[in-house]
Amino acid sequence: MACDFRALAVPGVQALSPYVPGKPIAELERELGISDIVKLASNENPLGPSPAALRAVERAAHELTLYPDGSGFALKSAISARFGLTPAQLTLGNGSNDLLDMIARAFLAPGRRSVFAQYSFAVYPIATQAVGAQAVEVPAFLYGHDLDAMATAAQDAAVVWLANPNNPTGTWFDRAAFERFMAQVPESVLVVLDEAYSEYVDEPAYPNGLEYLAKHPNLVVCRTFSKAYGLAGLRVGYSASSPEIADMLNRVRQPFNVSSMALAAAEAVLGDDDYLKRSVAVNRAGLAQVADGLRLLDLAVIPSIGNFITFDCGRPAQPVFQALLREGVIVRPVGNYGMPDHLRVSIGTHEQNARFLAALGKVLA
Amino acid sequence: MACDFRALAVPGVQALSPYVPGKPIAELERELGISDIVKLASNENPLGPSPAALRAVERAAHELTLYPDGSGFALKSAISARFGLTPAQLTLGNGSNDLLDMIARAFLAPGRRSVFAQYSFAVYPIATQAVGAQAVEVPAFLYGHDLDAMATAAQDAAVVWLANPNNPTGTWFDRAAFERFMAQVPESVLVVLDEAYSEYVDEPAYPNGLEYLAKHPNLVVCRTFSKAYGLAGLRVGYSASSPEIADMLNRVRQPFNVSSMALAAAEAVLGDDDYLKRSVAVNRAGLAQVADGLRLLDLAVIPSIGNFITFDCGRPAQPVFQALLREGVIVRPVGNYGMPDHLRVSIGTHEQNARFLAALGKVLA
Repeated sequence: MACDFRALAVPGVQALSPYVPGKPIAELERELGISDIVKLASNENPLGPSPAALRAVERAAHELTLYPDGSGFALKSAISARFGLTPAQLTLGNGSNDLLDMIARAFLAPGRRSVFAQYSFAVYPIATQAVGAQAVEVPAFLYGHDLDAMATAAQDAAVVWLANPNNPTGTWFDRAAFERFMAQVPESVLVVLDEAYSEYVDEPAYPNGLEYLAKHPNLVVCRTFSKAYGLAGLRVGYSASSPEIADMLNRVRQPFNVSSMALAAAEAVLGDDDYLKRSVAVNRAGLAQVADGLRLLDLAVIPSIGNFITFDCGRPAQPVFQALLREGVIVRPVGNYGMPDHLRVSIGTHEQNARFLAALGKVLA
Repeated sequence: MACDFRALAVPGVQALSPYVPGKPIAELERELGISDIVKLASNENPLGPSPAALRAVERAAHELTLYPDGSGFALKSAISARFGLTPAQLTLGNGSNDLLDMIARAFLAPGRRSVFAQYSFAVYPIATQAVGAQAVEVPAFLYGHDLDAMATAAQDAAVVWLANPNNPTGTWFDRAAFERFMAQVPESVLVVLDEAYSEYVDEPAYPNGLEYLAKHPNLVVCRTFSKAYGLAGLRVGYSASSPEIADMLNRVRQPFNVSSMALAAAEAVLGDDDYLKRSVAVNRAGLAQVADGLRLLDLAVIPSIGNFITFDCGRPAQPVFQALLREGVIVRPVGNYGMPDHLRVSIGTHEQNARFLAALGKVLA
């Protein structure tokens, strides 16, 4: 009789529902036999890659047979210099998802709890459950983090996950709220501040997590090169923390977790200020364009400071999502977040946004 | 008072000594201020990348802003077609290290045991200890796996790790030994057969793990594109198993663990038969060249069928390693494997091998 390897897996893994990614363009092409597809499903940068990153990739291609530098010396030096940190504070990840996973593996285990907000990033409970720890969801306030309630829930937790801006809702909290939160949370609780979308933010009251590291040795700030820096396909992100926390994360890090291409491209794009400026400018214009267009369609929009907007279709969203697919437009259902009437759309180029708005108008009419 | 985040990490991680990678060329250049360095430390392919892989990387570069296909549809289809498998049997990894890690996270936990051989790959005990499970080392026989002893030790284990050929010793076991082992091990024990170096093997009695999957639903075969396929810098490997085991591994897999560059390059090199043939031919000639050269220096060599040779310096190896560094030649100390008098050298091009042998002769004289 064959063994049941599901039953032999560790309990947290048996119960796990994997993350559902945005639909890839190639998959829709295969399914519907259509081309000219606009994908606004994964909060990707619509500009195409930074020229500096492309040149770095071309150079790195000739050393593909060699293992990457597992210490990430050059990229860590560049990040340190840019943000006034030391290399010992940094941990490099295969995307920031890898960092979230490493944090869970280093600091969570059966019998420990992590705290996250309703309508926040799906990977927080997944990473928690994968190591058999308990994920505690705190109800949202106006689709954003209720930080006072989260601080209360975090008193006996090992880890608390904050997303600022939050994905998938685009909401944010300000410096005063964050400082009040940090004052309420015991120093033995690891606070993970996920700033994957921080480069897009233009709010004077927005707290830059890196500036709080000196004061709070229990803070880990996670950032990524997948969004404003335009390197989602290469997988690279980093965390900044106290050297003690970084030491623990680097112990569970796979020795060659970041490819040599990703190391080289991230270092290059970090020096490409023009690319970052253009990414932010195109996003700012597109956010206004899409928000205005959605309001013209009489749809309720959750105010966003990220590179995406989540809106209420006023009806079940799944049929709207499917109808948009048939128009060649991929957006993101958020039913798995308990938002069955909402869709999330990433901000694209002016033309992509216009095409999405036209398709949505047609589908809803 | 600041908290001790080492004490707050999970116990397995607190005790972990991370994997020590081979010294990168850039690091030696920084330290010694020398150039023209030959690195024969990480079992890398000396041919440089496959032209087909380079073309695939160039094409994929234009889509760097998009997330990879998290399902790995195209690469899984290519691997399936090539080896007569189904995509549901496959799990893709960020290098095969990622697969070893996923196996540990899915099937090991505190109170569970894994079994590995003395002088076998360092990542097996590291992945085991990182999830708080117990790693049981079985003494080697002539630097290779003592499979009968391992089968005995595996009776109450959750996982057993086999490397064939073994790294860092280059030893191997034949079909008869493997079949006897599988017959002795309970079907509830996951048998991981790490075939990272299998493409180099030219022994009629060598067991191709993939051919045993139908008979043994508890078998997981791990392979990599880092060695004979020459893509170490890009990080991509795969495992083949029953669909049930693959389902569990894919639950702990990070959704975008393999970059789009790596997916594209691996698919391309899988179709580049000429590259694989050249890799194997250059290695075969180099193995003979290095083994003969070492014997001419009166050094005891462990017979290897991989792309590396481990030899006994007849004295503490660390000073020999350091002296070789000063000659611009990086090899691999294996003191962390309990072999303080041995060094492992990767097979390079004819010229690299000659340079290593000349430097070693000078250093030992």
